[in-house]
Amino acid sequence: MTHDYKMRKEILEQPGLIKNLVDNELENIKSVAAAIKERKIRLISFVARGTSDHAAIYGKYILEIFNGFPCAFADHSAFTVYDCKLDMTDTFVIGISQSGESTDVVEYLQKAKKMGAMTCAVTNEEGSSLTKGADFTVYLHAGKEYAVAATKTYTTSLAVMWLLSCCMSEDYDRVNTLLKQEEYMKKALALEDMIADRAERYRYMTSGTTVGRGLNFATAMESGLKLAEVNHVVMRAYSAADLKHGPISAIKPGDPVFLVAPTGKAFECMRELAEDLTGRGAELIVLSDDDKLLSMAALPIKMEHNPDEAMTPLSYIIPSQLFSYHLALAHGFNPDEPVGLTKITLTR
Amino acid sequence: MTHDYKMRKEILEQPGLIKNLVDNELENIKSVAAAIKERKIRLISFVARGTSDHAAIYGKYILEIFNGFPCAFADHSAFTVYDCKLDMTDTFVIGISQSGESTDVVEYLQKAKKMGAMTCAVTNEEGSSLTKGADFTVYLHAGKEYAVAATKTYTTSLAVMWLLSCCMSEDYDRVNTLLKQEEYMKKALALEDMIADRAERYRYMTSGTTVGRGLNFATAMESGLKLAEVNHVVMRAYSAADLKHGPISAIKPGDPVFLVAPTGKAFECMRELAEDLTGRGAELIVLSDDDKLLSMAALPIKMEHNPDEAMTPLSYIIPSQLFSYHLALAHGFNPDEPVGLTKITLTR
Repeated sequence: MTHDYKMRKEILEQPGLIKNLVDNELENIKSVAAAIKERKIRLISFVARGTSDHAAIYGKYILEIFNGFPCAFADHSAFTVYDCKLDMTDTFVIGISQSGESTDVVEYLQKAKKMGAMTCAVTNEEGSSLTKGADFTVYLHAGKEYAVAATKTYTTSLAVMWLLSCCMSEDYDRVNTLLKQEEYMKKALALEDMIADRAERYRYMTSGTTVGRGLNFATAMESGLKLAEVNHVVMRAYSAADLKHGPISAIKPGDPVFLVAPTGKAFECMRELAEDLTGRGAELIVLSDDDKLLSMAALPIKMEHNPDEAMTPLSYIIPSQLFSYHLALAHGFNPDEPVGLTKITLTR
Repeated sequence: MTHDYKMRKEILEQPGLIKNLVDNELENIKSVAAAIKERKIRLISFVARGTSDHAAIYGKYILEIFNGFPCAFADHSAFTVYDCKLDMTDTFVIGISQSGESTDVVEYLQKAKKMGAMTCAVTNEEGSSLTKGADFTVYLHAGKEYAVAATKTYTTSLAVMWLLSCCMSEDYDRVNTLLKQEEYMKKALALEDMIADRAERYRYMTSGTTVGRGLNFATAMESGLKLAEVNHVVMRAYSAADLKHGPISAIKPGDPVFLVAPTGKAFECMRELAEDLTGRGAELIVLSDDDKLLSMAALPIKMEHNPDEAMTPLSYIIPSQLFSYHLALAHGFNPDEPVGLTKITLTR
């Protein structure tokens, strides 16, 4: 097993990038929060694709739960295909794109500004198209990301969302909570040998389902995408509630279901789902700090207990990134360059 | 092949239910639109699950494109799990549930009202829990829906979204455009024999992907859910743009991809995707009125040309409903009662 792929290197870099982001961007994000107040912003709208969109899902939850601020996801095509006119004078549009070149995200942000929105680019690439003309730019400072499957730009994007929430509520204790996540992320990385050892079991898995609830719905979405991207596996991602509204009927005995289930407010819902899925004979891959839930899994991934449920997405994505990486090696795939994908996706 | 299942009967009823809805609810929906204006509503937020959520996707597009009105989807769990506090005094929350008993939708609507929102229940069941305490109720008047897989309550929910848009812009010519859809829906139903004949080819399909763009992203989502629900097939649904941002890498030669692609503004994007997918050796099932695109399909489903692209979701869902139904018969499944699903889903 070679260990010199860029994807692995980028996964391993993640814990150190959190403090780096805080050091470089906290003051800038404070000024964004001040402008939100000053401009009497009433709605925050996210525009993003793929992995960045999953960071937006997290952002929407965090800003709603911690700040009571209404948030929405942009329908890109309403602007880029149907040329709709929205009064956006009290809307703050956050465009997230690690490359800053995702064409429809760039176009949406520019059109939103023309319709009166205050805009912010969140990107890893200095001077990229997304930053042109945006009112604010927040950089991820993650260092160049080479692997097609985004990893370190995902966790740094999550951290940006958290910092924005902290700054909007002027609660800087919560910045320290973020800084503590470095330790949880390192403990998640320490699971690599176990995951590398067990990934082979899934060499012939052709499809799977990832499930989270609440804040970790973002983790479920991103876990599913990583597995699909580098392993060419058909993955579906659901919130526990949406899965029960129909798609669960496609789960057959032996089908692999990945459950992202830290203890906390969303846990009970995931536990109930695990029982239902066990009844259906599904194979459970469980990420949790709860021993009883872990005991129901064919592949238990025991996480450190984290008292801040809202921060668990930063560490809970790491085992999935590692799993996707090592499963790609088991397949004999190059995880850095999945066949048929490019780092920058050009779509309208 | 027996033809006495309730799901088929309910699919066939759909065209006649549009005028029925207009006759019964237009005046009521006018009063909802008037209240939106009077209350100076600034944001419309949808809360729904499963099929109803797909009607909400359509509603969001329509209200943004035709009315320039900002819309959002509710994160149920922000309220029901995390107990967040939102200032909703200028928000209109629309809860959609055919049964009116979907627990988290009911709870969300009640909490939203307490936080100051104006609320509306959209349901097929008179006096159901969702209607209790809601400021407005719009009934679908679709007659009792017995099959677990919702069909007629989906198309009538789409029609409610359209009528709300008409009433908000006070453009009643667009009501006539809706009434015209009865003919397009009948023409889609006339495809049943062909679809019944060809469905068998997919007897051993274990997974598949449905794709739309813009307004017909809703159709892609709903088509995927129907196939998953009654056939226990693993389905993924994407917008054409999101598919290209990663998940497309899981499409292998022979994999079935359903493309919802009426001519119109979103067509070019779907045509480009069809070429990409053909290059990957995917098997295309194409719903379109464009002969050239249809010629790329293993299963071409030729639809009538419809000059109103925004209305195509009402007729384009019908072949997918019929396909799901006849594939279930090919499997020997009872399409009315998919194993492991219930008509009313209780989730938090």
